Amino acid sequence: MQIGVDSFVAAPVDRVSAVDPARHLSELLEAITLADEVGLDVFGIGEHHRREFLDSAPTVILAAAAVRTRRIRLTSAVTVLSAADPVRVFQEFATLDLLSNGRAELVVGRGSFIEAFPLFGFELEDYDSLFAEKLDLLLKIRENVHVHWSGKHRAALTGQGSTRARSRTRCRFGSVSGGTPSSFTRAGVLGLPLMVAIIGGEPHRFRPLIDRYHLAALRAGHSPGQLKVGIHSLGYVAENGNGGR
Amino acid sequence: MQIGVDSFVAAPVDRVSAVDPARHLSELLEAITLADEVGLDVFGIGEHHRREFLDSAPTVILAAAAVRTRRIRLTSAVTVLSAADPVRVFQEFATLDLLSNGRAELVVGRGSFIEAFPLFGFELEDYDSLFAEKLDLLLKIRENVHVHWSGKHRAALTGQGSTRARSRTRCRFGSVSGGTPSSFTRAGVLGLPLMVAIIGGEPHRFRPLIDRYHLAALRAGHSPGQLKVGIHSLGYVAENGNGGR
Repeated sequence: MQIGVDSFVAAPVDRVSAVDPARHLSELLEAITLADEVGLDVFGIGEHHRREFLDSAPTVILAAAAVRTRRIRLTSAVTVLSAADPVRVFQEFATLDLLSNGRAELVVGRGSFIEAFPLFGFELEDYDSLFAEKLDLLLKIRENVHVHWSGKHRAALTGQGSTRARSRTRCRFGSVSGGTPSSFTRAGVLGLPLMVAIIGGEPHRFRPLIDRYHLAALRAGHSPGQLKVGIHSLGYVAENGNGGR
Repeated sequence: MQIGVDSFVAAPVDRVSAVDPARHLSELLEAITLADEVGLDVFGIGEHHRREFLDSAPTVILAAAAVRTRRIRLTSAVTVLSAADPVRVFQEFATLDLLSNGRAELVVGRGSFIEAFPLFGFELEDYDSLFAEKLDLLLKIRENVHVHWSGKHRAALTGQGSTRARSRTRCRFGSVSGGTPSSFTRAGVLGLPLMVAIIGGEPHRFRPLIDRYHLAALRAGHSPGQLKVGIHSLGYVAENGNGGR
């Protein structure tokens, strides 16, 4: 088992607890550095476009963390792929992967908020097809230097090399709780590691969905060894014996 | 006068001189750290989407440099705004500005290569209107927390706050040599500092264009104090007395 921490860089907006954003990010980098030193496996940064979070450009934050750390993997949690351009996303993560000596990890999803859709000019009615299409393109870019691709939501690629920063960038399929069962099937069919974001509800309820993921993957011919499953959930960490606080 | 270095992170692609991309970026960070230590004013990273350069995601590289340096300003050289989304661009630079304690600088331009247009789905025939419109939006985002804007090349904004990472991000207007005289006029009318990229041709040829910039700015009511002019050009640096090598 591997264990890590995700942060959305929550920044309270009320006057009493408001913090200076620069100081907030500085303290976040200290936390990531500490997580690296004590041996956590991964640190994730979310992507939100809301005033209560400072994580609108997660790869910029992760790049700063890359040169302050040595072993910890650095991941998005999650990259809102539906509203992003897969070429830009791959360029950013490939560069992050180079800067971190192969520690970048990309978790793609549709996000649990929807503010990215109007902000970047996408329609909520395309919620499913945007994600399916962009994931398809992202995986093609990851596998091929020169990409030929066409779709409905983005300009076609006709053999361009999207970036010299080739890399071993890992890609996980992040599915949020409340996601439809078909998301779990799709992750399985694609043979991608799965990250389940349990925002509400009891973990055991997700077991049938994870079984569905495994079954779809095995039917599609993927080896059990690549079917890693992760869970993102709220938690509280305290010192031993300190009770509830 | 201020002096700095720009890098496009050129990475030779022939077999003899090919370098490992991760090592290349590591050496770049060493160079930026040294530039900071010896007191250079600014270090810039270009943006290209060609196999001979490793700068497809400049803000990711600049963020890594931000936490390795103390005083040097970190800039794009240039951000190819025509093919980018001004909201994403601002989010990235605002985050960089926070990570670097106010040392981020954004130089926007149309680029001297055109590979970004087909890669990101834009038409070369919109070369001028894309840049004018996106610069207009970028400046609105910089000045306002909640933006109302509509245009031809991007979805409208209807009061969204694009990022909590408000910042003092400086913005320069980067114009490349070969740019039309109207570019210099526009930079002046907007009162933006000007960066002239002299890729070919003798510097004195640009004097009339810079005069045009100053005249347009003063006519538009901008104060002379904000009319900084920078020149980006090829150079060769050697130790004193070492002659040609």
